[in-house]
Amino acid sequence: MDAQAWLLEHGPAVDAVLERWLPPLDAAPADLHGAMRHLVFPGGKRFRPGLVLAAAEAVGGPLQSALPMAAAVELIHVYSLIHDDLPCMDDDEERRGRPTVHVLWGEATAVLAGDALQSLAFEGLLMDTDPGRSGRAARDLARAIGPAGLVGGQVDDLRQGENPGDEAFVLSIHERKTAALIQACVSGGARLASASEDQLAVLGAFGLEVGVAFQIADDGLDADEDESGCSLVSLLGREACLERAEALLESALSRIEGMGERAEPLRALARFAVRRKA
Amino acid sequence: MDAQAWLLEHGPAVDAVLERWLPPLDAAPADLHGAMRHLVFPGGKRFRPGLVLAAAEAVGGPLQSALPMAAAVELIHVYSLIHDDLPCMDDDEERRGRPTVHVLWGEATAVLAGDALQSLAFEGLLMDTDPGRSGRAARDLARAIGPAGLVGGQVDDLRQGENPGDEAFVLSIHERKTAALIQACVSGGARLASASEDQLAVLGAFGLEVGVAFQIADDGLDADEDESGCSLVSLLGREACLERAEALLESALSRIEGMGERAEPLRALARFAVRRKA
Repeated sequence: MDAQAWLLEHGPAVDAVLERWLPPLDAAPADLHGAMRHLVFPGGKRFRPGLVLAAAEAVGGPLQSALPMAAAVELIHVYSLIHDDLPCMDDDEERRGRPTVHVLWGEATAVLAGDALQSLAFEGLLMDTDPGRSGRAARDLARAIGPAGLVGGQVDDLRQGENPGDEAFVLSIHERKTAALIQACVSGGARLASASEDQLAVLGAFGLEVGVAFQIADDGLDADEDESGCSLVSLLGREACLERAEALLESALSRIEGMGERAEPLRALARFAVRRKA
Repeated sequence: MDAQAWLLEHGPAVDAVLERWLPPLDAAPADLHGAMRHLVFPGGKRFRPGLVLAAAEAVGGPLQSALPMAAAVELIHVYSLIHDDLPCMDDDEERRGRPTVHVLWGEATAVLAGDALQSLAFEGLLMDTDPGRSGRAARDLARAIGPAGLVGGQVDDLRQGENPGDEAFVLSIHERKTAALIQACVSGGARLASASEDQLAVLGAFGLEVGVAFQIADDGLDADEDESGCSLVSLLGREACLERAEALLESALSRIEGMGERAEPLRALARFAVRRKA
């Protein structure tokens, strides 16, 4: 199973939902709409939407049923990138080789575009699906990105700039800033595909481990470019980081061993996320 | 019916939900939690939560059923205030006689506190209620505050600083920036109290008119302090604004004439919002 090929195969269906949800460029306020679309089209690898769809497939549900969740997590991801790039946060002027949103549209529009993308994620998810089922997926998504999740992790990550912290603190940032959303992708996709509570528990634990492994590996792989001390690399060294990531990946994979052939895309995406090879 | 007395009577029940939802000050990251709580406790008049509860009562449902929606709209309102106050937006250093969130905790934490309040509003609403019913209320709320609602209105309001615009443009900003959320309060409260589709249509139209009337009256009543030209006052004059608000209020009230005695709190709140007297 080639993870990249799988992502490419399913990307267009996700893009179609995103295109339908996002307000058009030829309507006012066009600058807001442009800012909201900037990092969605062209997007990145669509790794998080891929996880949503692969989790739906893993529990035997129709992929189609999880498409709104796939689009929602991509909008959430882009909202978090736009706000992370702001001058008052990481102050990044470039992302994926293009100017960041605040460079092109100004800070106010960047803040508001992120705000609107968060709202649109919930609106779209709750609009395109059975509310009984998507209500629970939306609740889990909201929890994953709130004060106990993504935002709390970002607050501590910004503060960590002054203080490298200890290993437990770095791991707690990774869990909240990165892994909570990855976990919500996996359990949300499974939920929309009618997963059982047992499957949801297994996949939730899988998602959290994959998320932390992904971030640790990211720290390790980026170690040459960025030795700023805000990662596990400065505490453990590059090799130990990559070993730690691999161990977490193996643990995660062992949890879903019993899910059979239909979980292959999910396994391939997890390996790809951590090893960066399919 | 005394609107202020009614708000005071029901405030504690809303506050109890908000207290339960918001992360505690004695847990980390404490600065994020403090920033999130700053404008919630002490809050304002809790006018929006009041509208939610009054709409539930108007359709004969138990007020209790709408409490999660009441708390959610208050968190959304506070998130929008924190972001509106940012230096890149309205650049306000004081609100309700206290320093604004970014003055006390810095811009990054202010952006993130607003982000987290938006997430927490959806999480709480979807956690405390039957997801089938609250899913629809959450979807309507998300739509009201997204690019076609609150955020779109704020983008145009910021741009309007450079250009007073015409009457239709100002009204379209009021509709999106203020009235869409007021409308979501009224229809969300009614929805959670099992309103019929007919009742929802009537109350939706009522909420939109009350919301626009509220904002026009606000412009008119604030005209002495703030003649910056960003309101209908500079186009029509103070008296004509207040007359326009009164006409919209009367139109809104006539829509719910048939709802009888149990809609009295909703009528009283609408009058209070526009006339600032109970």
